[in-house]
Amino acid sequence: MRIRFEGLEPRELARRETLFHVANGYLGMRGNFEEGVPGNLRSIRGTYLNGFYDSAPIHYEERLYGFARTQQSIVNVIDAQGVDISLGGEAFSCFTGTLNRFEQALDLAKGIYTRTVDWTSPGGRRSLLVFERLASFDMQQLALIQVRVTPLDWGGRVELVSFQHGDVVQDHDPNDPRKASTGKKMIDITLASREGSAMLMAARTTQSGLMMASAVAHRWQGAFGQEVQSSKQVSQAILMCEAAQGQEVSVTKYCVFTDSRREADPVTQALTLLDQALAQPFAYWADRQADYLAAFWRGADAGVRGDEALNAALAWSMYTLLASAGKDGIGNIASKGLSGEGYEGHYFWDTEIYMFPFFLLTDPRLARPLLDSRAAMLEEARLHAREMGHASGALYAWRTITGSECSAYFPSGSAQYHINGAVAHAFLSYWRATGDLAYMAGTGALVLVETARLWLDAGHWHEGSFRIDSVTGPDEYSCVVNNNYYTNRIAQHHLRGLAALCRALDQAGLLEQVKAQTGLTRQELDSFALAAEGMYLPQDEKLGISAQDDAFLSKQVLDIAAIPRDRFPLLLHYHPLFLYRHQVCKQADTVLAHFLFEEGESEDVINKSFDYYERITTHDSSLSECVFSMMAARTGQVEKAYRYYRGSAALDLEDTHGNTADGIHAANMGGCWMGIAFGFGGLRLFGEGPSLRPCLPAQMAGYHFTFLWQGSRVRVAVEADQAQLTLMEGPAIRLRVFGQPHELASTLTLPLNG
Amino acid sequence: MRIRFEGLEPRELARRETLFHVANGYLGMRGNFEEGVPGNLRSIRGTYLNGFYDSAPIHYEERLYGFARTQQSIVNVIDAQGVDISLGGEAFSCFTGTLNRFEQALDLAKGIYTRTVDWTSPGGRRSLLVFERLASFDMQQLALIQVRVTPLDWGGRVELVSFQHGDVVQDHDPNDPRKASTGKKMIDITLASREGSAMLMAARTTQSGLMMASAVAHRWQGAFGQEVQSSKQVSQAILMCEAAQGQEVSVTKYCVFTDSRREADPVTQALTLLDQALAQPFAYWADRQADYLAAFWRGADAGVRGDEALNAALAWSMYTLLASAGKDGIGNIASKGLSGEGYEGHYFWDTEIYMFPFFLLTDPRLARPLLDSRAAMLEEARLHAREMGHASGALYAWRTITGSECSAYFPSGSAQYHINGAVAHAFLSYWRATGDLAYMAGTGALVLVETARLWLDAGHWHEGSFRIDSVTGPDEYSCVVNNNYYTNRIAQHHLRGLAALCRALDQAGLLEQVKAQTGLTRQELDSFALAAEGMYLPQDEKLGISAQDDAFLSKQVLDIAAIPRDRFPLLLHYHPLFLYRHQVCKQADTVLAHFLFEEGESEDVINKSFDYYERITTHDSSLSECVFSMMAARTGQVEKAYRYYRGSAALDLEDTHGNTADGIHAANMGGCWMGIAFGFGGLRLFGEGPSLRPCLPAQMAGYHFTFLWQGSRVRVAVEADQAQLTLMEGPAIRLRVFGQPHELASTLTLPLNG
Repeated sequence: MRIRFEGLEPRELARRETLFHVANGYLGMRGNFEEGVPGNLRSIRGTYLNGFYDSAPIHYEERLYGFARTQQSIVNVIDAQGVDISLGGEAFSCFTGTLNRFEQALDLAKGIYTRTVDWTSPGGRRSLLVFERLASFDMQQLALIQVRVTPLDWGGRVELVSFQHGDVVQDHDPNDPRKASTGKKMIDITLASREGSAMLMAARTTQSGLMMASAVAHRWQGAFGQEVQSSKQVSQAILMCEAAQGQEVSVTKYCVFTDSRREADPVTQALTLLDQALAQPFAYWADRQADYLAAFWRGADAGVRGDEALNAALAWSMYTLLASAGKDGIGNIASKGLSGEGYEGHYFWDTEIYMFPFFLLTDPRLARPLLDSRAAMLEEARLHAREMGHASGALYAWRTITGSECSAYFPSGSAQYHINGAVAHAFLSYWRATGDLAYMAGTGALVLVETARLWLDAGHWHEGSFRIDSVTGPDEYSCVVNNNYYTNRIAQHHLRGLAALCRALDQAGLLEQVKAQTGLTRQELDSFALAAEGMYLPQDEKLGISAQDDAFLSKQVLDIAAIPRDRFPLLLHYHPLFLYRHQVCKQADTVLAHFLFEEGESEDVINKSFDYYERITTHDSSLSECVFSMMAARTGQVEKAYRYYRGSAALDLEDTHGNTADGIHAANMGGCWMGIAFGFGGLRLFGEGPSLRPCLPAQMAGYHFTFLWQGSRVRVAVEADQAQLTLMEGPAIRLRVFGQPHELASTLTLPLNG
Repeated sequence: MRIRFEGLEPRELARRETLFHVANGYLGMRGNFEEGVPGNLRSIRGTYLNGFYDSAPIHYEERLYGFARTQQSIVNVIDAQGVDISLGGEAFSCFTGTLNRFEQALDLAKGIYTRTVDWTSPGGRRSLLVFERLASFDMQQLALIQVRVTPLDWGGRVELVSFQHGDVVQDHDPNDPRKASTGKKMIDITLASREGSAMLMAARTTQSGLMMASAVAHRWQGAFGQEVQSSKQVSQAILMCEAAQGQEVSVTKYCVFTDSRREADPVTQALTLLDQALAQPFAYWADRQADYLAAFWRGADAGVRGDEALNAALAWSMYTLLASAGKDGIGNIASKGLSGEGYEGHYFWDTEIYMFPFFLLTDPRLARPLLDSRAAMLEEARLHAREMGHASGALYAWRTITGSECSAYFPSGSAQYHINGAVAHAFLSYWRATGDLAYMAGTGALVLVETARLWLDAGHWHEGSFRIDSVTGPDEYSCVVNNNYYTNRIAQHHLRGLAALCRALDQAGLLEQVKAQTGLTRQELDSFALAAEGMYLPQDEKLGISAQDDAFLSKQVLDIAAIPRDRFPLLLHYHPLFLYRHQVCKQADTVLAHFLFEEGESEDVINKSFDYYERITTHDSSLSECVFSMMAARTGQVEKAYRYYRGSAALDLEDTHGNTADGIHAANMGGCWMGIAFGFGGLRLFGEGPSLRPCLPAQMAGYHFTFLWQGSRVRVAVEADQAQLTLMEGPAIRLRVFGQPHELASTLTLPLNG
């Protein structure tokens, strides 16, 4: 399975840099050309380490109490991508001479990105150049770049100058008024030296005072000679050989990155790891990469038949989720993964609601560090709750790297209290999917209890129901509202889930330990239960739908069909008050609530709500279409589900939001997987266990996906008019299909029509 | 009548600088000591010209569409206050030697501030120094500073060095985290020269590119010799004489300020005006000042008997309103008048709702330029409406100098659409009080029609009523709400008033001209009338009160009695979301609506609303207590009205909000006058004309006030158990007292108990 583009389109350069970034959850390197590009082309040259940030004070013209004080931004670290190439004395560039062939491909089974260039120089020398890259899943600090050169119709001097470059700035674009016109410098080089044949460099962030190091060295095939030079900001290795016509010569660049959030001594550790890495050739690390991915794909086995584009998008989504997700309990998943600087490299609820399910249900060992990363932010969440005026509890920051709030516009930032519910939802799902009570009795309970306390402090009783005022739901076109259905529903789920967990902990003799650790009391648990059962969920009797919030349905409906296409996304063309004043949704809100929590709502309310909100939703957020796809399938509109699914699958590969250059839309990639499993497959994990409601759009020949539940791995394959369920490993499992209970011990084949 | 303080209290220095500023509506000079103060004391040295501003881009970490782009700030202009004094070779300072007597007094009849210092130098020389200042009401560009020195027990050299200083920065305070720690420079000196014995200086603002000039020269009594020196940033005149023991010598400093918002050539005009001014001695300008004020006080005749502090506060309030109000149709009234840089010298709704009534009812010639100043902003208001997404109409900026929005936090800024109603209310009141149909047919109609159109575009019909969603009312502790009672009520008043005006214009044969000028149609007028009559005014049936907005009464009540005193004002200690989530009011909102528009609401609703909102109002805004005083009187709680009135009267003189150093609270000064006329006097100007409902708190022996209505000037004097109404000038007038109609032709004496 590959993602592949042929031909070089200068206007798409920055987008392709995103699509062909290599990453492993710690280290991400955009698919920049080793040899560089002309300065007039839009290109974002970047390498990032998950959670490695610089900070800066946030300036407000009018600062009110409790406004977030400090920005955090993912840092564009030391650049080790550069390799200038001279062939028979002529500098190689894709923008001179003749490109006989140009191909970029990411192999999802190998985990290697390859750029293949068949090039005739201005002087007439034809050469084949193959660039291969990987960010190792085995050694997360390691990236490899292999350059293979074959003189096709000439012989002579091949010279490579391989750089390590410390004069790095953040993304900027003098032609885009929304971006900085000059690049901000976030690292200062503190060390640049040669250690044997290795080039070593270290840097300190300007404000946050974090340290990082990079160590670079080379192996080669061919009669290369090497000379290493080092200066304050740039080190370089000059590699030269004489190549015969038709003879491939190659150099592999080993790049190791370390940082002080993980290592006590990043410099020493970088050199140690570089030594380990250098002991093995490119092929060794490529084999390890393939082995790692083979195991991954066994768990993540999913595909679409009869639509190769969709199938590739799905595979790429799963692969990129893996490449984006922190695996060390420090890094989480930035909303752009490790592919760019968009949204400052912040973590949002995207992780828990859109991406966590994929990891949880394909390999919970990848899900757990995401929970650990949130647990590590708990103290910051407590402080944030105090800043927001809450006497007790913890409130997770809407956007953050280390846990402190980085949102400079609270109405669509800190006001999104539902992030607490998202975090809780992930912990509760983890418990239900894995049964890991030991984890829940420790870390899990700590997070769940403190975040639950927040709801009790934020909400209040009024006329017999528990209400939560002045919060913002997922839809950022309505901010600071009262009783957002989604928020109240996820809070209810949170409080109920905690109660259920406490019962299970009690039965396992673990509750007393939790009470001692958290100060939880019976009385407090009772107040949680009362609030959950009294939770106010706004409904509109006349319309027969769930109301997005108390006031939403009395506002003026915005006729989005009458708005010219060039005025979308609306947030770039309308003042927030205009949007807040109208019934218009940036994204799924109530519809998302019905996806996550359909229990208790009638089919009729779910169907009518979908129809109602669909008419006023612009999908200006990339978090929207995948949800509408799943809920279209849920409401029996299978062809519509397919259309939304296609939109979701195409988002980055076809750049439908126009900003893939700034990085991938990681949440949508989770949505792309969920669209198969939860959407067409109808998978739900409420109450007693998995249930399915598979359907198949006419445009697909079939699809399949796999999920793991309490140790049982189930493969669901749908084609023609039937679904085949296969127990791939683990004990027999009870599940429901179209509401009917089944026990799956080996294979079940069921008709699609319920 | 004087405001007077004895003794020098260094900690109160900055506050006294505010209290003893001199101003005339164009030019304001803080009461800084001519000879300066030690650098470690908090002092704000400043001179300001109404509406003379510098601009700066507003930076947002997250800028959304339509956010205000450019800040405007009143400029601290060239400093002409400085006079160093040497007495027998010893430098005069209030902070060395012995202060035998120190007195500061502002004479409200003379319009002169006097500082009297009986000082013994460290070397033992005793002298009497008298500093007198005025900002001329006759020549608005002119300020005079007279220094009189009498050697009491010695004779010898008296030397004055009088400065004109261009190295001026804005207010800053390294000890206050809310203020800039270093002073921002907003002017660059472009010219510093001698013109004869005059010192001439000109400056350009750094960003807005405005020009200003100051010209300074001296006259003296005594055998002074003068030497004038001029350098790039500082000019000085050295004046020396030998004074005999007991002989008073004096120097008068003439300071003229001009600016390019008023003058094509500020430099030439400054010199011309200086020549005119210099032709007359201090005594001449003092006489003119007294004449001007005598006329003013005839119109503004009001007072309190039996409480000298209240009487002085009332007189000072009226005087300071006069000193603050722009009279040239360019400057309006900054919320701090011309006494400081607080709120950047911006104009708010304070002008129309709190201060305009005083001018309108005492001297409409002073009211009219305030309307003209708003009319001059109409085009900016149109542009602002477009920015905010409105297809038609004009929306006045919440805070501004030239008309463009300067609020960097829209939820308690641009969202306060009610400012449109405030502007309209002032125009409509002007029409009713003066009958000036010619003005209304031109400027008035232009403003009223464009602002009315905004309501129609901002609101919408829902379930048979006209609603206005997502606006902020006066109370900034609840932002972006739906159907704020105050906003809807003032919009209704606006639309109804415009309809009434159009009928009157029609009768006068002026409507066609208005239609041609504004594009107003019969259909549009009908839609205005429909919206006015269908305006939704939220009520709570159970509580029997008007609801502040749709959601307010379902929120949690904040127990403000339980909050420690040092946590007020709440906005400095609680995140906005905490405040928005609770029933808590910064200031009068619904209660203000009931003050302005009681027609149509029952006494019961008004009374219960007052009681309800009073319990949850913190009065953290200086716009609140005066309204509660008036409405306490209205609801028959006369002693409570008195307590609020005392709070309002003491606000600046006793610095009860702790920030008088930054400038006066001009709106509260309007409230101080309204508290007598509208509060205790019960004056209302609804419908057919003036009505009164006088009451007298036990703590007062009596009070009186005067108002002008359609050419009839009425003096109302209340004492003991009766009110005496006297027609001071103009035709007999029909008015109601306690609901009963009366015709006032000369004098009426009526009992207080209705």
